[in-house]
Amino acid sequence: MKVTEDAYGRQLLAQYKSRTATAEIIERDDNYIDTGSDAGMYFSEYEQWSPAERRAVAFAEGRVLDIGCGAGRHSLYLRQKGFDVTAIDNSPGAVEVCRLRGLENAIVRPIADVDEFAPNSFDTILMLGNNFGLFGDPVNAKLLLEKLARVTSPEARIIAGTRDPYKTDSTEHLEYHELNRRRGRMPGQIRMRVRFGRTVGDWFDYLFVSREEMEEIVSETAWSIKDFIGAEGPDYVAIIDKNPSTV
Amino acid sequence: MKVTEDAYGRQLLAQYKSRTATAEIIERDDNYIDTGSDAGMYFSEYEQWSPAERRAVAFAEGRVLDIGCGAGRHSLYLRQKGFDVTAIDNSPGAVEVCRLRGLENAIVRPIADVDEFAPNSFDTILMLGNNFGLFGDPVNAKLLLEKLARVTSPEARIIAGTRDPYKTDSTEHLEYHELNRRRGRMPGQIRMRVRFGRTVGDWFDYLFVSREEMEEIVSETAWSIKDFIGAEGPDYVAIIDKNPSTV
Repeated sequence: MKVTEDAYGRQLLAQYKSRTATAEIIERDDNYIDTGSDAGMYFSEYEQWSPAERRAVAFAEGRVLDIGCGAGRHSLYLRQKGFDVTAIDNSPGAVEVCRLRGLENAIVRPIADVDEFAPNSFDTILMLGNNFGLFGDPVNAKLLLEKLARVTSPEARIIAGTRDPYKTDSTEHLEYHELNRRRGRMPGQIRMRVRFGRTVGDWFDYLFVSREEMEEIVSETAWSIKDFIGAEGPDYVAIIDKNPSTV
Repeated sequence: MKVTEDAYGRQLLAQYKSRTATAEIIERDDNYIDTGSDAGMYFSEYEQWSPAERRAVAFAEGRVLDIGCGAGRHSLYLRQKGFDVTAIDNSPGAVEVCRLRGLENAIVRPIADVDEFAPNSFDTILMLGNNFGLFGDPVNAKLLLEKLARVTSPEARIIAGTRDPYKTDSTEHLEYHELNRRRGRMPGQIRMRVRFGRTVGDWFDYLFVSREEMEEIVSETAWSIKDFIGAEGPDYVAIIDKNPSTV
């Protein structure tokens, strides 16, 4: 990604420098546009996280890799708790913000290159904040889950947040699911980009799945769903453990 | 304007029906995108208006025409004060919201068609909320000021809000001014459109001017600046009175 297209990172940097919370603008490839996560969410403290995220982060053990770290809110919390944390993001701006916030161990690296880490480097993979979505599509998800198996310890765990896309009343979202079915994509496979000022981010796929869909994706890999956290709303977090057989 | 392109009106309707304040997304023709006015501003009550708007609205007299009425915040206030108010907007959605809020005298009509009203129909023209911008460009502004002279009484008054575009530190705004100068437009002549969900509004010109620029535009018409309200910030309101010589 060219820095000039790093709309996401530029916004995080601008927010960090101005100490102002601004809403993120997300554009979908059906022209749908909306403000994304709440202003300031990327800089939120533990007390402001959802109950599901607070419960989920307690499942972290050992050496942690935070994938799609953003402004580092989860990594900073875990490091403060004494964990050995490495944070990666494909956004140079996001990683710059992490370092400015004191997270020296933040690296510009897309999830696709996660296998550049040595085997058995991590015990926990953290993908909170809907970052199961970074798997992009089910085929890529399986490929990346295998890469994650290689860089983790035998009893490793993935903590991954996502959103059940079917828990919506929005006609525009339901019609987008239909569009995706027609073009052979998963209904919750969102092609989107971030806009910030004049900076237009690259298009990328971000995958939202129901619990059943996640079960199916994970079932064909070296990993198994151990638990789902989050009750009523569309957002939930999966605790995904490495299968003993792959040891 | 086709209703399907009425992004502005659809957002006002959605806000009205859901009772939820959402931020407006504005796109400029240099790709700059931002959330516009504060969420809920269009439905704000008198107490929430800026001091300049509160002072300016006190200049209203007689029969009022509210141009670009939006969700009707200014019209509803003045009607409650006993004024005879007509409200127009080129957005069918905005006018629908006005009627749902009890403003029966709201009409879908673009400012360009303001001369469809009979001569001497109004004593006050209200263009608050930056609606001096609806003049679009200086040539059109002079044409519309003549149309407004025809539909108003001899001692009529225009109350028009705008923003001094030069009161900014934003590189992206300053570079946009330069772009406009190069293509022969006024620096503050913003070509913009509203985006809401999948609805992409039509491009239109919205004119921001300094006090000096407004003086120059108005000086060649049947009107004269009587006063400027608003001190420090970029936003201000002009009180513009009809010249006695045109009676």
